[in-house]
Amino acid sequence: MATLRPPPDPEADPRVAAVFADIRATRGSDFVNNVWRYLAAEPGLLESVWAELKAVMATPSLLEPKVKEMIYAAVSIANACDYCTHSHLAAARARGMTAAEQAEFLRIVATAARTNALLNAIRPPVDRAFLAEE
Amino acid sequence: MATLRPPPDPEADPRVAAVFADIRATRGSDFVNNVWRYLAAEPGLLESVWAELKAVMATPSLLEPKVKEMIYAAVSIANACDYCTHSHLAAARARGMTAAEQAEFLRIVATAARTNALLNAIRPPVDRAFLAEE
Amino acid sequence: MATLRPPPDPEADPRVAAVFADIRATRGSDFVNNVWRYLAAEPGLLESVWAELKAVMATPSLLEPKVKEMIYAAVSIANACDYCTHSHLAAARARGMTAAEQAEFLRIVATAARTNALLNAIRPPVDRAFLAEE
Amino acid sequence: MATLRPPPDPEADPRVAAVFADIRATRGSDFVNNVWRYLAAEPGLLESVWAELKAVMATPSLLEPKVKEMIYAAVSIANACDYCTHSHLAAARARGMTAAEQAEFLRIVATAARTNALLNAIRPPVDRAFLAEE
Amino acid sequence: MATLRPPPDPEADPRVAAVFADIRATRGSDFVNNVWRYLAAEPGLLESVWAELKAVMATPSLLEPKVKEMIYAAVSIANACDYCTHSHLAAARARGMTAAEQAEFLRIVATAARTNALLNAIRPPVDRAFLAEE
Amino acid sequence: MATLRPPPDPEADPRVAAVFADIRATRGSDFVNNVWRYLAAEPGLLESVWAELKAVMATPSLLEPKVKEMIYAAVSIANACDYCTHSHLAAARARGMTAAEQAEFLRIVATAARTNALLNAIRPPVDRAFLAEE
Repeated sequence: MATLRPPPDPEADPRVAAVFADIRATRGSDFVNNVWRYLAAEPGLLESVWAELKAVMATPSLLEPKVKEMIYAAVSIANACDYCTHSHLAAARARGMTAAEQAEFLRIVATAARTNALLNAIRPPVDRAFLAEE
Repeated sequence: MATLRPPPDPEADPRVAAVFADIRATRGSDFVNNVWRYLAAEPGLLESVWAELKAVMATPSLLEPKVKEMIYAAVSIANACDYCTHSHLAAARARGMTAAEQAEFLRIVATAARTNALLNAIRPPVDRAFLAEE
Repeated sequence: MATLRPPPDPEADPRVAAVFADIRATRGSDFVNNVWRYLAAEPGLLESVWAELKAVMATPSLLEPKVKEMIYAAVSIANACDYCTHSHLAAARARGMTAAEQAEFLRIVATAARTNALLNAIRPPVDRAFLAEE
Repeated sequence: MATLRPPPDPEADPRVAAVFADIRATRGSDFVNNVWRYLAAEPGLLESVWAELKAVMATPSLLEPKVKEMIYAAVSIANACDYCTHSHLAAARARGMTAAEQAEFLRIVATAARTNALLNAIRPPVDRAFLAEE
Repeated sequence: MATLRPPPDPEADPRVAAVFADIRATRGSDFVNNVWRYLAAEPGLLESVWAELKAVMATPSLLEPKVKEMIYAAVSIANACDYCTHSHLAAARARGMTAAEQAEFLRIVATAARTNALLNAIRPPVDRAFLAEE
Repeated sequence: MATLRPPPDPEADPRVAAVFADIRATRGSDFVNNVWRYLAAEPGLLESVWAELKAVMATPSLLEPKVKEMIYAAVSIANACDYCTHSHLAAARARGMTAAEQAEFLRIVATAARTNALLNAIRPPVDRAFLAEE
């Protein structure tokens, strides 16, 4: 089903083993999900994707983890990414998103998509009041 | 620039006048932005879009208003909606998103889009651990 | 604003002149819009795009011309194509789409986009009853 | 496979039961397809999505039902929504779209996507003749 | 799983048989993949899609075949087309793309998607230096 | 027109000055285009985006620079990113893409988009022969 063949024993490669160890330590869990098992076929890419994900999503910052995962999932839904939608909605739930919050999230995402289509059809000029540059 | 002609005197139509009055009261501001001025060409559509926006975005709910606008903006960026991106980033700023939070938001949106492309290319199977149904 | 430079005197090229003449004859109008004036920079591409557009959109077929333009415009809106959205909504109006029909069209496009986002988020299995193969 | 768990006995909830009854009555069929069975996990969202679908798609209006489903399917294809593409092409067939019309529909959708890409690459200015505002 | 039913004996139709024969001759292989077996349900569409694919992708031209398939796959990934992503990455590999080149390809596609999102969010003006028209 | 305000004197910030100096040295040109001038509002994001662009696009690698820019531009067109389409087509031209190659590129991008739409509509199963895992 995938376009890359995951290595059968990924941690035999020390670069992969180091990334997997950091994933486990960062998350406090032994589970390493498929995206990393497939990216292990290309250790350089694996290192770069994990470094970015860790810096952006797994490092304490201004926004709370749950909110960050919801923003990430919103983009993934709009980009029709099956794997990402599943993994980041699961991550948002793991970081505290309740069922009621997920329902509200779905409502916002759906309403935004509706209005995006409407305004990509009508194409009104952007109000000057919205421009950051003024 | 638009595909609909906005009526020159929209509030001459009582249905439009009622929606504009509700927009002003809900927002506590006299400003009515272009999306409503163009939708005024079709009062039934105007009523339905405003009713949904008001219910989903302008009514107190579980998520804070700033977060709701950030989720909305994330979808709008992924859908390449110029007007929506401007208006909902402006709305997020108006609801308290700081410049530093906006930078963090941009980083999440960009990282999500990068990984979406990567996983839409690699297409690994979704891990069973992520499935809500199990 | 464009990434191709339109030739200043496109009809000096006989291949371009032949396509422009066919556009005018097919449409019964002297007006040749910008897409053809820019594609004139690459006569082979111009010929191929016009041949396809003429065969699919300007030749009598099962669906009425107005409906064909609405389907075309729906795709263009979803793909955030500014030029195409303007030109095919204008074409639909020229082929008889009334303002009330355009409002209904907008409503369908917006509702579809809303539900698309919702189902790209929820990802329920496709019902067996919908499958053409069974 | 889904990100929401459908309730095992959805009609035990009276709000869900009322929506399902209205779906059956509106369609004159006992079959309730998966989108509603999964949305039943969130009765408020279920009510709002059904109300919109019923108003826009299942209420007699200016455009014929078959055409409305084709416009809906066109958007769904462009948004890569698997479930929506299946369900709305099936709905168009149920409302009278013949195999030959479906082939013509596919041709229009494909041609639109081709030209959308081309014009999103070339980005010519929109002709003044197309602007609704002038 | 498909929305079209593939004919059980496609080559009974002489138009389909002619296209299949040309596919086999052009590729020097007996294998005819599913896209053609499903399009066989609509011989006119089959002929038109194959004619375009053959002219654009299977005819010697300025760009090398491997590069053409990589450009094609890049578009397919961005459009979330599952079938196209698989078939054109396989075609690129068949035309000489190595595993290391595929890893580099993935990196470019991912970086482009990241920056696309960022610039669809920030929306800076296009530099005059980039405009082909000047 | 942008959603970020570019700093009036960006190089007053030493982190921005260092990135701009590296952009100029890497490209052998004094010109710093708008994406960097706007990102200068957020020096951390500027550093991260430039580091990735430099590593992926401006460092000698297996694929030739012209081909890398064409792959990048293909993704940008599919994502409807106005700025990126202009800047990466300009970069491809600067790295040797001729007008005839650009015409061929446009043809491939357009054909891919057409077939993507068709296969996102038909949704045939992926042939086992294409799967990397087997």
